[in-house]
Amino acid sequence: MLGGSIGLALKRANLAKQVFGVGRDAAKLYKAVSLKAIDEGFCSIEEGARQSDLVVVCTPVQKVADTVHQAAHFASPKALITDVGSTKGTIVGAISDEVASRQFIGSHPLAGSDRSGVENADADLFQNKVVILTPDHRTHPDSLTEATKLWKSIGATVVNMSAKQHDDAVAATSHLPHLIASACAFATPKELLQLTGTGWFDTTRVASGNTQMWRQIIEENQGPVLHVAKNFATIWKKIIEAIEAQDFDELEKLLIAGKSIRDAVGNRHSSS
Amino acid sequence: MLGGSIGLALKRANLAKQVFGVGRDAAKLYKAVSLKAIDEGFCSIEEGARQSDLVVVCTPVQKVADTVHQAAHFASPKALITDVGSTKGTIVGAISDEVASRQFIGSHPLAGSDRSGVENADADLFQNKVVILTPDHRTHPDSLTEATKLWKSIGATVVNMSAKQHDDAVAATSHLPHLIASACAFATPKELLQLTGTGWFDTTRVASGNTQMWRQIIEENQGPVLHVAKNFATIWKKIIEAIEAQDFDELEKLLIAGKSIRDAVGNRHSSS
Repeated sequence: MLGGSIGLALKRANLAKQVFGVGRDAAKLYKAVSLKAIDEGFCSIEEGARQSDLVVVCTPVQKVADTVHQAAHFASPKALITDVGSTKGTIVGAISDEVASRQFIGSHPLAGSDRSGVENADADLFQNKVVILTPDHRTHPDSLTEATKLWKSIGATVVNMSAKQHDDAVAATSHLPHLIASACAFATPKELLQLTGTGWFDTTRVASGNTQMWRQIIEENQGPVLHVAKNFATIWKKIIEAIEAQDFDELEKLLIAGKSIRDAVGNRHSSS
Repeated sequence: MLGGSIGLALKRANLAKQVFGVGRDAAKLYKAVSLKAIDEGFCSIEEGARQSDLVVVCTPVQKVADTVHQAAHFASPKALITDVGSTKGTIVGAISDEVASRQFIGSHPLAGSDRSGVENADADLFQNKVVILTPDHRTHPDSLTEATKLWKSIGATVVNMSAKQHDDAVAATSHLPHLIASACAFATPKELLQLTGTGWFDTTRVASGNTQMWRQIIEENQGPVLHVAKNFATIWKKIIEAIEAQDFDELEKLLIAGKSIRDAVGNRHSSS
């Protein structure tokens, strides 16, 4: 979904002479070609990487670093290599100094979806979305410049921070909401599903996402996620205590504070 | 929003010769007329009720029973009176035997929105939505028949249950998700709001709703809400324990179970 969206966006804007897709499943590559998300598909990283000026690794987070190193082995030393992983500390930390200082920078486009596969790719996916770049002391200045240009060219706003800052932030803004949505769905007795409305539907939407992918994300970012999950437990305890004490003024204060935070984001994101 | 949507739906289907709106704010009534949600607006219940065969009370839950009694005082004894309140036990319990046995039945359309006001009314709001009716031993059979006909005629599916069953069910399917969404928004540091994505956006959407209205709903349904909130705390504790123990197989099991429940609802609801 993400790789295909990048392909579609680059091709539509005429920013790439050719877009190659690399994957193990030839049928998926064929589908990507037929959807014009890529011009050609390869089953080996070597074939894809050695011809490219830009490599974007879109594997599950636990395979990103390995794939970056493989791509770096075959790619031109001038090629920019980046990724779209939802965690950054483990990935950036696992990249060798050689590759990090020559051609790699970590990226995380905040443009998720509960849908996967190239059939859900969208050339507009990155429009008005934020992409976080995580340069460190090793990063080549050209990598930062080129990666910034790349994401801006397909509509995104770019924000730079350290991998640790990134992981702490997305634990709160992305990984926590995912766990909350899953727990909310999990808490609903199946025999009551007929009685759900749009509120339940939205609150639980992301629980539909790829569970293996999310397990890996949370595993990779376990420290920051544990921290925000405990913080959430404290807030939840306050809600329970307010209801138990029939202190609905206190409960309303929390609802008002939550609304004010929610309203500050407004309609910046459209539901995907 | 709800009253206006009922007006629009009834008028579009030619099911009412005339639709009257009753409210205290003449400007809002005027807007409802100009949006063709009502034919005429009144500031007194008497004027609206005495001419009507059907009265739908759309006030906040804590005013429903009083408003039903006022409407019953002025309306024809043959007029059907119902409401759209999100809680049913307190409302139905507060209706006098006389009114309950003659002309009232409780309704709850599961068709919420975080937006209010007639400008957000939608003639299609009830299409494919569930409306719960809560007849009891006092309910006149004609009230049940007529209310069922009403909601079906504007596109909804009707389900009957006791007020207690209703309150227990919606505590899980509606009130809990609302509190979860509010707590999720509340848990997000303001300085990180720029880094939220569509996941956060959907998971917190309903936190934007009318906080006074939701405070009242939770106050009215505090027993069942407390029960499901404690159940959710137990699930959340398990999540924290799984992460602390680095038992990501256990965490993935919960994600898979949540996904299976979410996927069972699929795309039945569209995001409002």
